[in-house]
Amino acid sequence: MAEKFHSFGRMLYGGDYNPEQWLDHPEILKKDIEMMKEAQINVVSLGIFSWSAIEPEEGRYRFDWMEERINTLHENGISVFLATPSGSRPRWMAEKYPEIRRTDPFGRRGLYGGRHNHCYTSPVYRREVRRINMELARRFGDHPGVIAWHISNEYGGECYCPLCQAEFRGWLKKKYGTIEELNRRWYTSFWSHEYNNFDQVEAPSPMGDSCVNGLNLDWKRFVTDRTADFARWEIQALRDAGSEKPATVNMMYYFDGLNYHKFADVVDFISWDSYPSWHNGPEYATAMDTAMYHDLMRSIQKKPFFLMESCPSATNWQPVSKLKRPGMLEAASLQAVAHGADSVQYFQIRQGRGCSEKFHGAVIDHYGGNDTRVFREVKRTGADLQLLSDLAGSDVRARTAVVYDWESRWAMEDAQGPRNVGLHHKDTVQKSYIALRKAGFDVDVIDMEQPLDDYQVLAVPMAYMFRAGFEEKLRAYVARGGILFMTYWSGIADETDLCFLGGTPHGLMDVLGLRHEEIDALYDGEKNSAVPVKGNPLGLTRSYSCENLCDLVKVTDAQVLFTYGEDFYAGEPAFTCHSWGEGKAYYICGDMEQAFYDDVYAAVMEQSGILPAIPGLRIPEGVEVSTRESDTAVYVFIQNFGREEAVLDLPGDLELIFGESREKLPVYGTMVLAGKKQSQEI
Amino acid sequence: MAEKFHSFGRMLYGGDYNPEQWLDHPEILKKDIEMMKEAQINVVSLGIFSWSAIEPEEGRYRFDWMEERINTLHENGISVFLATPSGSRPRWMAEKYPEIRRTDPFGRRGLYGGRHNHCYTSPVYRREVRRINMELARRFGDHPGVIAWHISNEYGGECYCPLCQAEFRGWLKKKYGTIEELNRRWYTSFWSHEYNNFDQVEAPSPMGDSCVNGLNLDWKRFVTDRTADFARWEIQALRDAGSEKPATVNMMYYFDGLNYHKFADVVDFISWDSYPSWHNGPEYATAMDTAMYHDLMRSIQKKPFFLMESCPSATNWQPVSKLKRPGMLEAASLQAVAHGADSVQYFQIRQGRGCSEKFHGAVIDHYGGNDTRVFREVKRTGADLQLLSDLAGSDVRARTAVVYDWESRWAMEDAQGPRNVGLHHKDTVQKSYIALRKAGFDVDVIDMEQPLDDYQVLAVPMAYMFRAGFEEKLRAYVARGGILFMTYWSGIADETDLCFLGGTPHGLMDVLGLRHEEIDALYDGEKNSAVPVKGNPLGLTRSYSCENLCDLVKVTDAQVLFTYGEDFYAGEPAFTCHSWGEGKAYYICGDMEQAFYDDVYAAVMEQSGILPAIPGLRIPEGVEVSTRESDTAVYVFIQNFGREEAVLDLPGDLELIFGESREKLPVYGTMVLAGKKQSQEI
Amino acid sequence: MAEKFHSFGRMLYGGDYNPEQWLDHPEILKKDIEMMKEAQINVVSLGIFSWSAIEPEEGRYRFDWMEERINTLHENGISVFLATPSGSRPRWMAEKYPEIRRTDPFGRRGLYGGRHNHCYTSPVYRREVRRINMELARRFGDHPGVIAWHISNEYGGECYCPLCQAEFRGWLKKKYGTIEELNRRWYTSFWSHEYNNFDQVEAPSPMGDSCVNGLNLDWKRFVTDRTADFARWEIQALRDAGSEKPATVNMMYYFDGLNYHKFADVVDFISWDSYPSWHNGPEYATAMDTAMYHDLMRSIQKKPFFLMESCPSATNWQPVSKLKRPGMLEAASLQAVAHGADSVQYFQIRQGRGCSEKFHGAVIDHYGGNDTRVFREVKRTGADLQLLSDLAGSDVRARTAVVYDWESRWAMEDAQGPRNVGLHHKDTVQKSYIALRKAGFDVDVIDMEQPLDDYQVLAVPMAYMFRAGFEEKLRAYVARGGILFMTYWSGIADETDLCFLGGTPHGLMDVLGLRHEEIDALYDGEKNSAVPVKGNPLGLTRSYSCENLCDLVKVTDAQVLFTYGEDFYAGEPAFTCHSWGEGKAYYICGDMEQAFYDDVYAAVMEQSGILPAIPGLRIPEGVEVSTRESDTAVYVFIQNFGREEAVLDLPGDLELIFGESREKLPVYGTMVLAGKKQSQEI
Repeated sequence: MAEKFHSFGRMLYGGDYNPEQWLDHPEILKKDIEMMKEAQINVVSLGIFSWSAIEPEEGRYRFDWMEERINTLHENGISVFLATPSGSRPRWMAEKYPEIRRTDPFGRRGLYGGRHNHCYTSPVYRREVRRINMELARRFGDHPGVIAWHISNEYGGECYCPLCQAEFRGWLKKKYGTIEELNRRWYTSFWSHEYNNFDQVEAPSPMGDSCVNGLNLDWKRFVTDRTADFARWEIQALRDAGSEKPATVNMMYYFDGLNYHKFADVVDFISWDSYPSWHNGPEYATAMDTAMYHDLMRSIQKKPFFLMESCPSATNWQPVSKLKRPGMLEAASLQAVAHGADSVQYFQIRQGRGCSEKFHGAVIDHYGGNDTRVFREVKRTGADLQLLSDLAGSDVRARTAVVYDWESRWAMEDAQGPRNVGLHHKDTVQKSYIALRKAGFDVDVIDMEQPLDDYQVLAVPMAYMFRAGFEEKLRAYVARGGILFMTYWSGIADETDLCFLGGTPHGLMDVLGLRHEEIDALYDGEKNSAVPVKGNPLGLTRSYSCENLCDLVKVTDAQVLFTYGEDFYAGEPAFTCHSWGEGKAYYICGDMEQAFYDDVYAAVMEQSGILPAIPGLRIPEGVEVSTRESDTAVYVFIQNFGREEAVLDLPGDLELIFGESREKLPVYGTMVLAGKKQSQEI
Repeated sequence: MAEKFHSFGRMLYGGDYNPEQWLDHPEILKKDIEMMKEAQINVVSLGIFSWSAIEPEEGRYRFDWMEERINTLHENGISVFLATPSGSRPRWMAEKYPEIRRTDPFGRRGLYGGRHNHCYTSPVYRREVRRINMELARRFGDHPGVIAWHISNEYGGECYCPLCQAEFRGWLKKKYGTIEELNRRWYTSFWSHEYNNFDQVEAPSPMGDSCVNGLNLDWKRFVTDRTADFARWEIQALRDAGSEKPATVNMMYYFDGLNYHKFADVVDFISWDSYPSWHNGPEYATAMDTAMYHDLMRSIQKKPFFLMESCPSATNWQPVSKLKRPGMLEAASLQAVAHGADSVQYFQIRQGRGCSEKFHGAVIDHYGGNDTRVFREVKRTGADLQLLSDLAGSDVRARTAVVYDWESRWAMEDAQGPRNVGLHHKDTVQKSYIALRKAGFDVDVIDMEQPLDDYQVLAVPMAYMFRAGFEEKLRAYVARGGILFMTYWSGIADETDLCFLGGTPHGLMDVLGLRHEEIDALYDGEKNSAVPVKGNPLGLTRSYSCENLCDLVKVTDAQVLFTYGEDFYAGEPAFTCHSWGEGKAYYICGDMEQAFYDDVYAAVMEQSGILPAIPGLRIPEGVEVSTRESDTAVYVFIQNFGREEAVLDLPGDLELIFGESREKLPVYGTMVLAGKKQSQEI
Repeated sequence: MAEKFHSFGRMLYGGDYNPEQWLDHPEILKKDIEMMKEAQINVVSLGIFSWSAIEPEEGRYRFDWMEERINTLHENGISVFLATPSGSRPRWMAEKYPEIRRTDPFGRRGLYGGRHNHCYTSPVYRREVRRINMELARRFGDHPGVIAWHISNEYGGECYCPLCQAEFRGWLKKKYGTIEELNRRWYTSFWSHEYNNFDQVEAPSPMGDSCVNGLNLDWKRFVTDRTADFARWEIQALRDAGSEKPATVNMMYYFDGLNYHKFADVVDFISWDSYPSWHNGPEYATAMDTAMYHDLMRSIQKKPFFLMESCPSATNWQPVSKLKRPGMLEAASLQAVAHGADSVQYFQIRQGRGCSEKFHGAVIDHYGGNDTRVFREVKRTGADLQLLSDLAGSDVRARTAVVYDWESRWAMEDAQGPRNVGLHHKDTVQKSYIALRKAGFDVDVIDMEQPLDDYQVLAVPMAYMFRAGFEEKLRAYVARGGILFMTYWSGIADETDLCFLGGTPHGLMDVLGLRHEEIDALYDGEKNSAVPVKGNPLGLTRSYSCENLCDLVKVTDAQVLFTYGEDFYAGEPAFTCHSWGEGKAYYICGDMEQAFYDDVYAAVMEQSGILPAIPGLRIPEGVEVSTRESDTAVYVFIQNFGREEAVLDLPGDLELIFGESREKLPVYGTMVLAGKKQSQEI
């Protein structure tokens, strides 16, 4: 079953649930069920961080409470995502087996404390995790109330213990074969850093090597591989104990520590924990930031994903934990669904009484009543999901994509380069994403290893590193008619961060019709501008500001559409276009303002005749349009993250299946329209 | 004698004196005495940090210079506070007994260096301290020139060595009895942190546990207990060697590391070291900040306290060490007296030539002459104290108080909650304090363990934790007619930081007539406002701004006096009142501006007919009025910390005993009025 | 030869060259030579960080590539500065001999990594360095293509290993003789820090002693001595192997870690690495900051110095690495020459492909062509140096100087004093420097150990420490007619940071006619002002602002020229003058704005009849005038670092030998004028 898993066939609604904190309060456990049912909750994540509750001493198990809870939940129509407890091991284990405690880059082994701090390599920890996972699977793997496995919790972090170092050496040996090849790829002739053999390799450390970028980068890759391997190990234990229920790991917001794409084949479905800082600046900016990550998560497997955690109220760990304004919970929850989520889940069902998360918002707070504003909003969102339950399993079929590549970003940010005070990679990627959204398009967010076959328009912003044959894929993409937007600081270095010689963007100078020559860095607050060339084919006439980085290029046969307005490179190309093969390759030289992207993408789309979900619809400021599709139907979500009520002029062939009106959409309002499926028009 | 100690019967004037730094300069030692006499100095603190001077090698004592100094000082009318030298041990001792060096939370034992860095637990250090203290007591305990013991210096800091960890475990075992109880109180079911036994407990550490708030809090309590125990040990050594002279420890400005209330029974009198940053913003704000701490120090024992250190000139350790403007030394010194100090003492008599405090201001500077501005101001202040010497022993008998509770503050600030960028606890406490001061009242600053019997008005701002039966005391206080001002974020958690269930402020919802429902956090710079309800019984008509935190409450039967002016909770209660028993309970929902407090307290006082020291006196902006009382007389201090000369209209029954005029008070000026004692009118 | 070395007899042009990174690219090595010749490059620094390339395993040498390169370069007219490779040892060495790895102040020995991280004391490392240096000297010491030795690279850093600690103890014993004397000089009676014997001494450490200023200061001196000793050891190995070619170490921009004056006798010529942040604020400010350091470097030996490194384009390690605007490379290069440089050298010839400096600007970039803007500018600068080659060996003969003393600065900044948020020492020194430059004078930048015989005007700003008999030298200087400008915070402490007693500036109160009494510190943003006394002999009439620090002095017989305008010391002296002996001693009390210095120095110069290089020339804003002299000729450089073209009215007796016009000088333009040598007019 797991391999083919696509959907649970219904929208899930629920959250993390830790009844083991309340075992001496049976009246509270009872109230939990009542209130969950009142809110139409149909799933909880159980067992996260519960190891000491199920195995308080080595070998002494206490599964009674868990069994009772699963049964009771099931009887009340609430399913369970059952967690493996590896995110935080019991104290007795850390005491008995010091090797399982993580070691920092200074070589200091941690004391007991916190969470997510075990060694991923330790055979002892792997043995213990396999043992407890198999116990769980044997006992609950067949329980009808258990519908999926929640593997550990928010994997992250690095261990520098001798076991991990040895594993790293083996990983490198497998990758490079000979130490000479490693030396060449890591450029260790710099500062006499040549290795004589693999045994000399040590992980990067502030008290050792930190300047060998190839080492830093491979270490990060190794950490991802090690973590994915650990997740695979956890899941295999469940399988070996006979459970084939689908498994997931919950991922984190733009988490730098792991290349999540490497988990695509490890898990059966993708899930993530979303905690946007709403009400801090324009809501639309927050909405777009969240939307892009929803799309990134969705694009990993190109299947529905799950919103594994979100906050029903205010968090307690943000610098300022603001209450969600009335309606925002619903809007944020439905935004996830709009982008392809098959669930809305919270951290957590009942707020704990002590320790560091005791003030994190929850469905049921310390007061404990159902007469709170938060609980009322939770109920409303539960009702919404009931209405939309048919959408479960439908997905998003985007024809535009932006590239956000973990490994390229790691390399780019590790390199000392033109702007050590900030390259603004994510912002730059988002400018293309937002421009496409504003034009009404669904967008995939992919990395360099994913295929480009589905796309008509592709944005490749700050693709510093070209790896995995990316330049070849781009050539093929443009050749067959694709429209490419590439920016400055792309195609600079290869897979081990060796700079390309002979000109950049590597392998694409003919496609782009230009060569990067120098890159100027601007101080914070400094500006340049892009001035339209008169009569440019896009028909653009206004100037735009740019900042941070300005690429100076030598044009061979590209057409110059904009030139710089200031400084010694005034008049030099700032934006170019080159027709190549069947396609077109645009090059954006400087870090342009959002309006530039908005206007350029809109003009290119119009010229190229590429149509959005609702062609002709004028999308008001702050409004987002998203599409899910099944084989038979199209669902269009329209949400208002702007500052005032939006007025819409929608075509008549779409049926309003959610929302009050098809003409007016209040702030934080959502409407969903459905249409019969037409054959795709690519 | 020590147990009953109340006063030295005269105002003391002097400072820290380290003649051991000048033993090879007899002419300087002679000059010291001359200049001290010229300044009317009558006390010095001798022997602070002098261990290596009295015991340069193990067992080899050199008390000759100390004896000579004490004799000479005594002959010249200058008494001695004799210090125990434990604040900085000699190098030979740290070398011979490594265990006495403090260990940091990473387990690293310190090298020799600095000060205040010994282990408080080490039996060896305790033995050594007892030995040297007994030597001092035997030699000088009966000397008529020695009038008190100055124990160590500014106790502070923590040690994480194995001895301290073991002691901590014992402390916990005594407190909780069983490990199950500890687990319950610390909520260790969170993240599987259950302890199997007390031996597993480790102090909080960045490389171990830092998320168990109960552990963090108990560790801080343990550190206070350990330090108080060490102080007790030091004093006992003196007693065992036959000295019964009173003893003190010098405390520090709003020091977070120790709950100073726990020293109330350890020392015979309270003293502290005051170094306000004058001339940095409005003087009145600095004056109030200092005043509140004077009152806190005084309230610990409700007796006269001692200003053990202050700076005659500029310090050298503040970011910017500004010279005191002419007159400020006198004003600051007399402010301490106004608030109940029986001394004005300086760090230090003679400025040292080397090491880290060589540029700290002193009575005698490197130049060494008596023709300096600083020395002239020191002389003037000495003359002032002579004039006011009769006030020694009189105290302050306040009928209003504000609560500032160390343990509640520790817990609140350790909790991750609505505003991790700043809760502004001290500011909030000070707003009530200042409002009461502006209305002309003396104010006690107490913690939750102190009795409330003396008070008519009590401010309880941000009392996050309710401990020591505080809610019961508050109920009794209101029941018997007390006026209570409570603010948001009160009554949230119990003594081990477990959140109260069932609604908050815990135990007071009926008294206040409301329940806290949610709390909104505002970004820095964001504002809301409190708008008066028309016809509110306090007769208030203007609106006030509020910021940082806004509590949303559900009123049961409180009267709403103000409502919020902005955001989705506009119109919801912002300030309420509830009559209960014989008293009234006000609840301030948001972090209001100072003017709100000023106006509300003034209106409530007037309505309730509670009268200040000088009823009817209009107190000009920037002017402070404070009262000391003996059994027969009342002394009213009026000081001008404003920006211009103040004009006063004083009643005729008070005699001017200090100052030039009873009508006009220049900037930095002080007047003291005396009246015959009337029976108290509570 | 080395001892008498003065000049290579020609201007050198080139840079760092690391062909060992390209040995598998013979076509690139060939291209290197072609492009260097095209740019008229005549010198490269070879072998920096090349240890693993010449000794890949212990005892296995690979000098073949180096020999080939030296031969080929020589055949093409390019000389070599041959580097000793000690800046970064091979990995095998660090692995085999752990003692050579540096230890931090926490006692942690580093892992392998980075560079500049060896112990300077380790006998093993000294043995290894001597061995490889002798190998190099034996093989290449006589090669006609090798013209000098480049010793290691940018020495810096500290080691706290037991070997270094023992060496430090010996150094102290030699300096102080007895532990009593050390205790007295370090003032260890403070906080009981007395040492019983030298074995107890430990280097300063955050986990040990950090408050003993004498210890901190002597440790810094020891580190300088140890490093200089290591450099001497390296050079001696070359000499012992028979090479007498001159040797240098490359120094760093205002590097705080080493007192470079202590290398005056160690090296044969001075060189440094200059990386100004051009285009960040006014260019003139950057130009002056660089100019002063050129002059400091030149003043160490009072001989031509060498610009060992500079960047042909943008660096990669500055926060924002801005491209050099067209013309700036030439201007910056010629500025070095104007101030006495006999070379312009770059880091680096060819940009590396990997590791942390891969984006550092280079003569040949990753693209590799000669058709880049940077390469064109490099060629132009090469041509310039050809034109100016005759100036090699000429020097600067300044009659004005400013004092910048490393040890005084160390002590001042280590002291906790009036402004711990910034004393602005360098800025204050530069204000005098810039004022003298604006008046058209060449300026030496000297320390307290250098002779004052050459000078007519001497600025002594913030000379906190008086050491090496400095006060006596100043007395003699003024007595024989010198003009002295001294500022606040001078003459405060002696050579081991013991404060002077009896009044300061120590030993000069009679010379200055005043005594420092107090010093006031101002908050950032606070201002005071200096108001001219009517009819002051300098004829100055405007007021100037001052900030940061305001000295309050007691004038005995100085003449007050300015008084403070604000605060309680309004009307007190702010600037004074005292005629003493044949000379005059000015005292600047506060941190005055630049215009004060400009106007005061100009007025004093004019009154005293001291003439600049081109008397009567009005120097436009932003223009710098510098002079080099040989025994027969004078060369005047005029450079425009202003914002607009400068118009000049030059006397007719100077011949234009470089530049387009003698009337007009474009932005970034340089002209050089030559005159026949006249006898000096001191």
